[in-house]
Amino acid sequence: MLSDEQWFTEYCEEAGSAHSFRIKARLHEEQTRYQKIEIYETTHFGKLMVIDGFIMLSARDNFIYHEMLAHPILYLHDAPRRVAIVGGGDCGTLNEVLKHPEVEQVTLIDIDERVVQLSEVHFPELCGRNGDSRAEFCFTNGYRWMAEAPGESLDIIIVDSTDPIGPGEILFSGEFYSACEKTLKNGGMLIQQSESPLLHMDILQGMYREMKGAGFSHRKSLFFPLSVYPSGWWSASMARKGEPIGGFREEDARNRPFRTRYYNVDIHRSSFCAPEFFYRELGDAGPPASTEVFTG
Amino acid sequence: MLSDEQWFTEYCEEAGSAHSFRIKARLHEEQTRYQKIEIYETTHFGKLMVIDGFIMLSARDNFIYHEMLAHPILYLHDAPRRVAIVGGGDCGTLNEVLKHPEVEQVTLIDIDERVVQLSEVHFPELCGRNGDSRAEFCFTNGYRWMAEAPGESLDIIIVDSTDPIGPGEILFSGEFYSACEKTLKNGGMLIQQSESPLLHMDILQGMYREMKGAGFSHRKSLFFPLSVYPSGWWSASMARKGEPIGGFREEDARNRPFRTRYYNVDIHRSSFCAPEFFYRELGDAGPPASTEVFTG
Repeated sequence: MLSDEQWFTEYCEEAGSAHSFRIKARLHEEQTRYQKIEIYETTHFGKLMVIDGFIMLSARDNFIYHEMLAHPILYLHDAPRRVAIVGGGDCGTLNEVLKHPEVEQVTLIDIDERVVQLSEVHFPELCGRNGDSRAEFCFTNGYRWMAEAPGESLDIIIVDSTDPIGPGEILFSGEFYSACEKTLKNGGMLIQQSESPLLHMDILQGMYREMKGAGFSHRKSLFFPLSVYPSGWWSASMARKGEPIGGFREEDARNRPFRTRYYNVDIHRSSFCAPEFFYRELGDAGPPASTEVFTG
Repeated sequence: MLSDEQWFTEYCEEAGSAHSFRIKARLHEEQTRYQKIEIYETTHFGKLMVIDGFIMLSARDNFIYHEMLAHPILYLHDAPRRVAIVGGGDCGTLNEVLKHPEVEQVTLIDIDERVVQLSEVHFPELCGRNGDSRAEFCFTNGYRWMAEAPGESLDIIIVDSTDPIGPGEILFSGEFYSACEKTLKNGGMLIQQSESPLLHMDILQGMYREMKGAGFSHRKSLFFPLSVYPSGWWSASMARKGEPIGGFREEDARNRPFRTRYYNVDIHRSSFCAPEFFYRELGDAGPPASTEVFTG
């Protein structure tokens, strides 16, 4: 596929699928100490950031991903003051988190400073709040940062990582979740991108199992479309320390002091509704089974 | 893309995108009187049916599409007895509709008998109810069938068509919607696949406008993932004659006498929740604007 130079194609080996975007130009290519970063200008999706051959985001539809990684969890927490973002070097999630006036401090921990620097050049619309006095950047290993962080010091952890291969793999492990559990205050919450419900139920099962093993008794997933990722359908999974994941600050969400393009109160509720197969395939690792009654 | 023979690629010219599936074999290729039909065996998505270069369905994920075209509308209607399916020659929608014991008659109107015949060979799992005594097949032009159908004779019309280009174009027109409006009983409902919310808001706007012009004062869209269609995110849009589109038979849906893989009561509700941009971009053509209040 895309044998010519007019297309960028991402292959999804485990699904025998691929998706492609027509490109006008390759704007940047760089092998950093950690990974290969490419930036393309596409014909219809704006700019595209690619790391090690996998699309991280497009200018056209990243709003869905970033809004869904930030707003549901922040409105589920009563008072989200201290937030850490692990990964997320494109700064889109940081940008959404900083729209919440309740947030007092956000630490973005990305192993590769070049992602942030390139995003500031090529995706300035995501970096407009990088200078916010509440934002702090740490360019270091996310697992180590979390392991060394003071106990009970965070309200929210957002894991905005690459896939569970290569440097991102540790972020899907029991050790990492244990470090998160230790670092969260009681009632604190973790959210992590958790791949495609259609293609990667094995990864979701593993995450639920590891999160449970790390002491998170309450877990839940939300779902959203994302055209630049394999299958076009993506999930994020949450875990909460000590308390169930329940109601959200609905009035605050309705009267939010910023404009969204995807998120709203209805989307908040509906994003947590899982299809039938999801409950079945998660099995013991999962949330309580669907309350529905099957008669056939 | 897919310059070699190991992949089937569908191009979406209007979005500068493409998606591909790795194939093991081309099982069939045929130019019928109306269109070119191909059947592929893929490595990970089972069989794939392609018409005029566009993927119609895969064995792996068609359950989402067929369940969402059938069950929400049938549970929204108090007594769905007489149903017509326009298009839908793969028989997957027919198969779901016939799972509803309330349904007394379903007429499938597809212009091309070969689609049904090939589906019976290659997708037998979708054709298991083709012999049901309630099912009737008419191989003719869907618009003409609808125009000639007796007034107020149907409860539900499901338009399971190709894209609004070529033979499918008439099915997105005001004349067709007028014929549907005439054919539906009062309170009767129409649902039609309505393309990608990310890529095709112009088509959705046109459908809403034409449906309104044909006398359907109540319209609503639902959303679902679909990995074999462009962007992986799809919609279906409904119109109702004379009445608002309101509550559904929730108890019947919960106690449905068949097994689903995607649809459930929570999915029913959540599928109608639209993202913010959807309300904004539909403008006057759309449903009442989001009830949310923007303060920023």
